[in-house]
Amino acid sequence: MSMIKLPTRVTLVEVGPRDGLQNEKTPIATAIKVDLCKQLIEAGIQRLEAAAFVSPKWVPQMADGTDVLAGLKAMPSLNSYKVSYSALVPNLKGMEAAIEAGVQEAVVFTAASEAFTAKNINCTIAESIERFRPVAELARAHNIHLRGSISCALGCPYQGEVPIQSAAEVALRLQDIGVQEFDVADTIGIGTALRVSQVFEAVGKQVGLNRVAGHFHDTYGQALANILAALQLGVSTFHSSIAGLGGCPYAKGATGNVATEDVVYLLHGMGIETGLDLHKLVSTGAWISGTIGKPYGSRSGRALWSRKNV
Amino acid sequence: MSMIKLPTRVTLVEVGPRDGLQNEKTPIATAIKVDLCKQLIEAGIQRLEAAAFVSPKWVPQMADGTDVLAGLKAMPSLNSYKVSYSALVPNLKGMEAAIEAGVQEAVVFTAASEAFTAKNINCTIAESIERFRPVAELARAHNIHLRGSISCALGCPYQGEVPIQSAAEVALRLQDIGVQEFDVADTIGIGTALRVSQVFEAVGKQVGLNRVAGHFHDTYGQALANILAALQLGVSTFHSSIAGLGGCPYAKGATGNVATEDVVYLLHGMGIETGLDLHKLVSTGAWISGTIGKPYGSRSGRALWSRKNV
Repeated sequence: MSMIKLPTRVTLVEVGPRDGLQNEKTPIATAIKVDLCKQLIEAGIQRLEAAAFVSPKWVPQMADGTDVLAGLKAMPSLNSYKVSYSALVPNLKGMEAAIEAGVQEAVVFTAASEAFTAKNINCTIAESIERFRPVAELARAHNIHLRGSISCALGCPYQGEVPIQSAAEVALRLQDIGVQEFDVADTIGIGTALRVSQVFEAVGKQVGLNRVAGHFHDTYGQALANILAALQLGVSTFHSSIAGLGGCPYAKGATGNVATEDVVYLLHGMGIETGLDLHKLVSTGAWISGTIGKPYGSRSGRALWSRKNV
Repeated sequence: MSMIKLPTRVTLVEVGPRDGLQNEKTPIATAIKVDLCKQLIEAGIQRLEAAAFVSPKWVPQMADGTDVLAGLKAMPSLNSYKVSYSALVPNLKGMEAAIEAGVQEAVVFTAASEAFTAKNINCTIAESIERFRPVAELARAHNIHLRGSISCALGCPYQGEVPIQSAAEVALRLQDIGVQEFDVADTIGIGTALRVSQVFEAVGKQVGLNRVAGHFHDTYGQALANILAALQLGVSTFHSSIAGLGGCPYAKGATGNVATEDVVYLLHGMGIETGLDLHKLVSTGAWISGTIGKPYGSRSGRALWSRKNV
């Protein structure tokens, strides 16, 4: 294996409370979200996507973003932890709400596929990014770290194949409006390792791999192999979701995020530091799965939990 | 990614009918096994582990090995396929039965962990291999391709860590009695990519990587990342099990083999030929899962099946 570029330390951005719970049919109670975030922080998570300031009419699951963040900030036991909270913001109104709620990071989103933006937000990729220009300006004015999510970087449900260079071109455009970190996402989990290597290398050439994060879904079981391919390029930031929250692996059109526990198992096994306590993550993963009535969606989590190695 | 040594073609040894169904609590009817093997062959499988000639007192699930092979050989529609059938043989009696049944390959088995052989077969690794010497001689006399399975190469349920060199030392001993192919197995699915790289490199130095096969379990979700690491060394033979048969992923102590469908999805995605028809594999995987009353244990299989892409 090419180990030359393997990072010695990896940062995980935990997206379960947002990208995960957003896909639950029934909104989860605010108190449960706060408890989940608290447990994740106690397990060592330092970057936490906790909310989406989107229209509650469209996404009722995320209507309580302000309350979740307020709940966390009101918790004295979390005072000693350094956490950067992030939120998805679709527009200026969302960014204002995020600032009000006190996030440290905000996420704007577009795609590497024209068919996807046309279908989902009724505009071209370029237009979608231009619309974020005032949002980015507001972020800069408030010293908010701005991330740009690039969906469908490895394939699109509408157009199928996405050219290798597309994500890199989108990253450049996002950089132009002030985006500081680039979340390259395999939204439908369709990519495989060689393509990952090619796409991330292309993005890295444009904006620097130290500003690129990998966001993988395990729909086709490829997420860890894809993460390994990205690690070998030197990518050192990944998104993951506790218990694989974010789509039931047993349902039609499953879209599960890669499970945090599985990624940590891989990284620790390779001697790569994460600052995370895998045992605490596993008990958190088992707890949230039971609480929302789902089978526990992490393989290493299930294995460790069932063996009471935790 | 280091792509220099990536093979252009990979051979999968399908172990579902043996390693998979052996772990079912209730023995599966012979007719179902024959049908499963037939479908796998029609999907392109050319190396098929179809039986284990072990004591029916200990492993009643495998008592019908002779009948399974006879059933397959009696099927005119399979005449045009070139298939190498293999069987697990624990001793001379088993090898005699395997020869009688007309297999092309036989598998003897030991482990890379002294604690494992002590506990499971009450002898040292070296003793376990010496016992196979007459078995190997009989195989050679009948021109049977002899494989040696090296369990626990990446970790052991009893002794925990297994030294990197252990599998390589065992491979040398196996080679000494006449073993021609070395199945390096992560029996409990506990290994991660870097260790895989180290262990397989060590084995390859002793016996040549072209005679090494990777046998991975997905218990901790690591199988595809581990296969990727082995591919990057140039390993071009892997074991896999249709639908991930071989341990329920939802049960305590889950020990599922990596699903054939997931491996094929990875390989085809990387442009590596397998000679296999993924769509046929997926319908076979969905069929056998339903037939034995299990949830379909392949992620890419579920995704493709639910999308009716097959």
